Amino acid sequence: MKKKAVVLLSGGLDSVTCLAIAAKEKYALHALSFDYGQRHRVELALARENAEKAGAEFHLVSFRLGVPEASALTSKEAAVPDYIEGEHGIPATYVPARNLVFLSFAAALAESIGARDIFIGVNSIDYSGYPDCQPEFIRSSTETANLGTKAADEKWKFQIHAPLQNLKKHEIITLGLSLGVDYSRTHSCYNPSPDGRACGKCDSCGLRKAAFEYLGLTDPALGK
Amino acid sequence: MKKKAVVLLSGGLDSVTCLAIAAKEKYALHALSFDYGQRHRVELALARENAEKAGAEFHLVSFRLGVPEASALTSKEAAVPDYIEGEHGIPATYVPARNLVFLSFAAALAESIGARDIFIGVNSIDYSGYPDCQPEFIRSSTETANLGTKAADEKWKFQIHAPLQNLKKHEIITLGLSLGVDYSRTHSCYNPSPDGRACGKCDSCGLRKAAFEYLGLTDPALGK
Repeated sequence: MKKKAVVLLSGGLDSVTCLAIAAKEKYALHALSFDYGQRHRVELALARENAEKAGAEFHLVSFRLGVPEASALTSKEAAVPDYIEGEHGIPATYVPARNLVFLSFAAALAESIGARDIFIGVNSIDYSGYPDCQPEFIRSSTETANLGTKAADEKWKFQIHAPLQNLKKHEIITLGLSLGVDYSRTHSCYNPSPDGRACGKCDSCGLRKAAFEYLGLTDPALGK
Repeated sequence: MKKKAVVLLSGGLDSVTCLAIAAKEKYALHALSFDYGQRHRVELALARENAEKAGAEFHLVSFRLGVPEASALTSKEAAVPDYIEGEHGIPATYVPARNLVFLSFAAALAESIGARDIFIGVNSIDYSGYPDCQPEFIRSSTETANLGTKAADEKWKFQIHAPLQNLKKHEIITLGLSLGVDYSRTHSCYNPSPDGRACGKCDSCGLRKAAFEYLGLTDPALGK
């Protein structure tokens, strides 16, 4: 029987690439997505589409996180800031403790179904300055999950894989293309139009746009 | 201005005592409760009642955790086992990664509202053999939360308080009574009757019943 893996899947460029990596490693895939009141909820349709394409079981968990006003991604009021190259503070789109919550649900699902491997598409090179994308956080999350579940009493451990951790955005895209990822069917934009089109201006659009340009390509998710 | 604290509140004996301890320490209280499909959802009414009595703001987060069949607490099929004195394995009522998820939401709420202090009523003396009640887990959770939030970049840290960690159940009750806790208005039973009455037989009922008896008292939540 194939080993199971839980893959955190937002439907964005990074997590869809991460799913392709896990697929190549021949796991029985369980994709896990979240509706947390994000303004770019359109990403969830693409998460589901990519999960189905990869033959993954699709799990969707819905909840409200902290207080909505705490982030430009969940607030109805706050504006999503434009991308500024080279800026690396914590931006207004940071969602309090988001990856902490996501990884906790991944551990809960993994423990429930007997998976030991969790994949998350964080990276800390070309990223948005979020603290919950750093390797120290992933290392500590692994330890906490192993202490707070049956792993503490039994002879197994969770492993959290972050295969994009040290890649530049253009390297992620090159890798994904080699694995057959169709980036026109990914959504990264924080501030899409009502019909789901990427804005091309936010932090998340800016990072991927620049990476495609670096490769001499046009981001296929733009101008759809 | 008072310092804010987030208190995880199930409505059970331990968490209501923990709330009373945080209240005594003069925090501005934010109680955080979860509807995760538990069969003893009746606890949530008592969580809200105790939060209001303590002057706490009440936050309720709803979600489904892992797969329901993974625990006797969330499965419609599995039976809740009876209490057996001195038994300390991981019981069927263990919910995968529950405290991991709860603490993650506590960190998200705390970060959102500017609280640095989180209270959780875990204890590892008279408890149900759950791995997510151990001091190493609480220590590791604190570290992970401090790495996965703005605490990593700013000059503050979360502190997770587990004031019941090393108390026996009867010591918790004695402490709670000294703080004015009304234990008739707490709910710990995993397997209540449809009208919300405690069964008196499950692990959770058995532990508190034995502790009240040790003190020469009758558990006021039984026989209501």
